[in-house]
Amino acid sequence: MTISVTRTEVPNVEVTDGAAVPGGTAVTDGTAVKDGTVQYVNIGNLELEAGGFLPDVTLAYETWGTLNEDCSNAILVEHALTGSTHVTRGTDDEEGWWEQLAGPGAPADTDRFFVVSINIVGGCYGSTGPSSAAPDGRPWGSRFPLVTLRDTTAAEARLADQLGISSWYAVLGGSMGGARALEWAVTYPERVRRCGVISIGASSTAEQIAFAQAQTLAIRQDPHFNGGDYYAGPVPEAGLALARRIAHITYRSAQELDFRFGRNAQASEAPLRADALAARGRYQVESYLDHQGSKLVGRFDANSYIAITEALMSHDICRGRGSLKETLARTTADFFIAAVNTDRLYFPSQSRELADALPGDVDVHVIEAPIGHDGFLTEIGQLDAQLRGVFFA
Amino acid sequence: MTISVTRTEVPNVEVTDGAAVPGGTAVTDGTAVKDGTVQYVNIGNLELEAGGFLPDVTLAYETWGTLNEDCSNAILVEHALTGSTHVTRGTDDEEGWWEQLAGPGAPADTDRFFVVSINIVGGCYGSTGPSSAAPDGRPWGSRFPLVTLRDTTAAEARLADQLGISSWYAVLGGSMGGARALEWAVTYPERVRRCGVISIGASSTAEQIAFAQAQTLAIRQDPHFNGGDYYAGPVPEAGLALARRIAHITYRSAQELDFRFGRNAQASEAPLRADALAARGRYQVESYLDHQGSKLVGRFDANSYIAITEALMSHDICRGRGSLKETLARTTADFFIAAVNTDRLYFPSQSRELADALPGDVDVHVIEAPIGHDGFLTEIGQLDAQLRGVFFA
Repeated sequence: MTISVTRTEVPNVEVTDGAAVPGGTAVTDGTAVKDGTVQYVNIGNLELEAGGFLPDVTLAYETWGTLNEDCSNAILVEHALTGSTHVTRGTDDEEGWWEQLAGPGAPADTDRFFVVSINIVGGCYGSTGPSSAAPDGRPWGSRFPLVTLRDTTAAEARLADQLGISSWYAVLGGSMGGARALEWAVTYPERVRRCGVISIGASSTAEQIAFAQAQTLAIRQDPHFNGGDYYAGPVPEAGLALARRIAHITYRSAQELDFRFGRNAQASEAPLRADALAARGRYQVESYLDHQGSKLVGRFDANSYIAITEALMSHDICRGRGSLKETLARTTADFFIAAVNTDRLYFPSQSRELADALPGDVDVHVIEAPIGHDGFLTEIGQLDAQLRGVFFA
Repeated sequence: MTISVTRTEVPNVEVTDGAAVPGGTAVTDGTAVKDGTVQYVNIGNLELEAGGFLPDVTLAYETWGTLNEDCSNAILVEHALTGSTHVTRGTDDEEGWWEQLAGPGAPADTDRFFVVSINIVGGCYGSTGPSSAAPDGRPWGSRFPLVTLRDTTAAEARLADQLGISSWYAVLGGSMGGARALEWAVTYPERVRRCGVISIGASSTAEQIAFAQAQTLAIRQDPHFNGGDYYAGPVPEAGLALARRIAHITYRSAQELDFRFGRNAQASEAPLRADALAARGRYQVESYLDHQGSKLVGRFDANSYIAITEALMSHDICRGRGSLKETLARTTADFFIAAVNTDRLYFPSQSRELADALPGDVDVHVIEAPIGHDGFLTEIGQLDAQLRGVFFA
């Protein structure tokens, strides 16, 4: 049967037999699957770039709309680091994370397209990850392997096969979702007709790897981490919250943080009033980041955070494929490249480098937003005209 | 007596009686103090902005050269966050951290000037800090109070009194050292004739506070931290090393890290070869940051890192003084403002804002260096002509 999970728990997944009929309504217990409902499919063993394989892999996904007769209207929206498959609201009316982009009447119009989103392997929203049961019945935990973005793309191709989608009308995403989309266009050129790569470049740079290392260490150094085998006991909440704080600083711009918080003290707290350092009050920006940390702790698994972060560290479209130009020469998709002008994590220059190396003349559509990297989520509406005119024409 | 310590240990300080004769050669056991040797002086109880006072405060300092008859040739060089008083080599010939700036024949010519450097209160290089003995004989540890940069400036003024220096020829520093110099010029306008503020602005911004919070949390969440009372047992080395990694990323530029390390694997290690995530090899930039972390752990106290970092969070020249223009109106020094063009921690725009608000026409001297913030240390030589012509004329 197909079960639905909220996006705030790590489910013990009951796997479907993978049966899915074109049209995307996986018939299970006789009832059609509702839009924006998590479904599960088993895609078998997954060979890994890093060596070995991950057995009996489950992918969790959601769909909206209807796949047409010739299966030509399918759009894959790839989520970012801690994102979920809930791109836009479904019949449950639970708000999605990219409603400016996908939904009835949106650029990725769910009245016209069959929109699919797949939870990344290693995550905690239903696809096989560190919190899933290994063959011995215990959670993978410390034993979970490195699953690169290229590995996860291969897994997603098998789901596409099961859905009867031989070629996507479009594959797109922002940040890590953009890296996943780009990997799709390079690995399976014949299966991607349009590719949207937003707020990320062709590979993770040294600085991006450096910030990622700090985040994974913050979790690994949590006294509750226990090498990754913490599912029986207390979980490394403080470490995950610190990782999120570090990440969140890079998701915003210095200007935005200063404009919103400046040097203000949090409510009644006094950063300068204290007998001892540990007792001092917080600045507003500290309280804000504490809140960002707690919010993630409430909805995400620390091992999954590490697994996906290290997958993103592995992002390199050129690995084993030659120069960037040579690598991209194999692509046949029409590309839509966008960047946020104030992004200080994935610099617009990286998007420009990618666009310049792509076959043909490819523009970089610039989102003007003071917020920084997160502008790809909050300000995608700025590109509405370009997306409708060029991409989803 | 005066004792000398290496810059890699936390000394149990034996305090002098503070006797120092003009000329800067503190006569203790009858022998003149050698250039570049740590000396100690007791400046009594220190009232604190945050409330209360720190009793019986010791300041550690070094001097080079000779104070002239009218005590008019004294230059105070303030160190940065984890810096020491060893600005340049002394008779021991141990290399200093800013030899391009100070030394025989350097802009701050020790053959001509009496150069002084003072270890910040809260540090671990001889001045009273969390590892020092409190009145009860135990280390301050968790009980160490917040000592703001303004507090530490007041302490340094008492040392200047004891050295017979009523007014400095110049006070200057980079990064936190620049904040300390600026605080001197605003708190004691009549005592600072020239002020050099390099690679820092008038206050710590929300983003700078945010990165600082992540660093202090990395230490506080170390299982060995024990609330700050760890001196009897194992010390929070992992937490301090993580704090340093986070900080070091912000000290360099994305371009520099990418140019030096790119996505290269460390030596024989393989970031993509591993059965389990925890076993994967490192990227070069990870190994580089691991090394930066270990180096600091070998020479710095974790509580001092927190104490000074929170002092830097408190950096706000305007606190209790009105607008930036009003605050700076009281200064009488000639200012030398400089910034590194690629600094992504203390943005050149903050130096410009400071220069624009200062009385008179003040330029911002730009250091052109791809390295980022650390350029103030490595590339100060670029400003040699300006420093000699304008500042140390």
